[in-house]
Amino acid sequence: MTRLERGETAKLLRSLRRGDRRALSRAITMVENDEPGADALMASLKGGPGRAFILGVTGPPGTGKSTLVDRLVQKYRGADLKVGVIAVDPSSPITGGALLGDRVRMSDLALDGGAYIRSMASRGWAGGLSRATSRAMRLLDEAGYDLVIVETVGIGQADIDVVGVAHAVLVVLMPGLGDDVQVSKAGLMEVADAYVVNKSDLDGADSMVVDILAMVKATEGRSPPVLKVSALKAEGLDRLAAVVDSFRSRLSSGDEEMKLRSTKGMIVELAKAVALQRLLLGSETRLARLAAAVLKGELSVEEAARKLAG
Amino acid sequence: MTRLERGETAKLLRSLRRGDRRALSRAITMVENDEPGADALMASLKGGPGRAFILGVTGPPGTGKSTLVDRLVQKYRGADLKVGVIAVDPSSPITGGALLGDRVRMSDLALDGGAYIRSMASRGWAGGLSRATSRAMRLLDEAGYDLVIVETVGIGQADIDVVGVAHAVLVVLMPGLGDDVQVSKAGLMEVADAYVVNKSDLDGADSMVVDILAMVKATEGRSPPVLKVSALKAEGLDRLAAVVDSFRSRLSSGDEEMKLRSTKGMIVELAKAVALQRLLLGSETRLARLAAAVLKGELSVEEAARKLAG
Repeated sequence: MTRLERGETAKLLRSLRRGDRRALSRAITMVENDEPGADALMASLKGGPGRAFILGVTGPPGTGKSTLVDRLVQKYRGADLKVGVIAVDPSSPITGGALLGDRVRMSDLALDGGAYIRSMASRGWAGGLSRATSRAMRLLDEAGYDLVIVETVGIGQADIDVVGVAHAVLVVLMPGLGDDVQVSKAGLMEVADAYVVNKSDLDGADSMVVDILAMVKATEGRSPPVLKVSALKAEGLDRLAAVVDSFRSRLSSGDEEMKLRSTKGMIVELAKAVALQRLLLGSETRLARLAAAVLKGELSVEEAARKLAG
Repeated sequence: MTRLERGETAKLLRSLRRGDRRALSRAITMVENDEPGADALMASLKGGPGRAFILGVTGPPGTGKSTLVDRLVQKYRGADLKVGVIAVDPSSPITGGALLGDRVRMSDLALDGGAYIRSMASRGWAGGLSRATSRAMRLLDEAGYDLVIVETVGIGQADIDVVGVAHAVLVVLMPGLGDDVQVSKAGLMEVADAYVVNKSDLDGADSMVVDILAMVKATEGRSPPVLKVSALKAEGLDRLAAVVDSFRSRLSSGDEEMKLRSTKGMIVELAKAVALQRLLLGSETRLARLAAAVLKGELSVEEAARKLAG
């Protein structure tokens, strides 16, 4: 890095810490696009995560996660917290546009300077999105946001990984989703700190709550709360906020387990990106040689893979 | 591995090579669930990929990929080829059920012993699905399938990676998808060997073909064909099959570049799984130590990640 670049990184960080939204956007764009200065920018943030509470929100598509998140933003803005939202779509760059479209409307509502909303979608290589979202959360933290909500559109492995860096995770479901055994298959049970049964005015909400409670009881030691909410009708939000507040106060009272979990999640997501990038870059000749050996029958594909992984 | 297990693996492989569908299903389940015997099973397949032609089919959701694949299966079953299909959903384990539901109907149609259709969804850890699908393709190859179609539901990075192991890739689009610049953003242009504009009876099909041709011409040296198809109405399928046949004959006439591309893709997908698994397993103590150091301010998260990646 040249002296000029170092100077610019320092200037960007100063503006970001002062609360300059354009500097924040610029910094997130740098990490999103993996620009040359991104590594240096992140390296200049000494120490670990700061004081922001990171809330993960995940669950199947169509359960109303965005509306729920919007309600939480309004609620916490009302309490004068600075709230940042990262809406992540690991499944498809194409839906990124639509998501952003919704968000632009919301962000108009919330454009009071204390709310920042950003969509991020997959681009280019596996691991890139995970790293970019982890870094964006860190930047929002650095910019003085009190609450950072990271929301994903689905419940694939990439979605689960993205919310794995949160201090606490809400899993959003809705009545009529069908066999709730799928919740456990999808790996949601391992990450849920609370379940939200959204669209609670629909038939079957109560029985779904009962089902989730039974499932949780049968398979886990811990017992995350199960909340009935209608984000659209603004029902059940006080109880939801109380649960989120209880998580927040655990963090602010220094809960080591919670801090460790989030920090571990961030380290793992960033380390995955390092490992994958190393694999994908700088080994093209080696890969070509290994592939040739496989085609000659000298190596099996599995052996070649182990050699490439080093 | 015990002698008994070795014996069972050998027996399973013999049955699979004889064309026993139950043995094939059992073997794919082993790699899908990452069962203890899966590594040994794959290690006992010496040498590289064999003679199966692997066709990747990807594109945005809703473009009719499944129907198109079903048509290809019928077509090639008519020509008496053994056809295997792996339908992969990296975005969500929840949609796995629905996809499988459709497929069961199709598989009834095709249940003549020469077609094998299997859905695979994400489970458990990043990298697991990529490895499982690569291995399943290899098993279909070993079981004597002439054509293996790997179809994904979306166009996220995971979908692109999954079809990266194919000898050739069809990118399926449809009229009215909107800004086709998104096709290039999504990384589809790098993988497309042919574009299919499906649902060609809808308005805008011709102009979409023109747009794709222009985009391809402007940005790439090579010029993949652009085909108008209506899978539902069985229109344009002969031309599509002719294009697929031209790819197949490139492979059977020993096209080294095509073989290398697929073999490299398989090695990379398997190597990613090795690298990620190494990161996720066996380093819990190390991770906890690194996270503690970050929380004490001795390390930044980024430094800890580089240390964990080793």
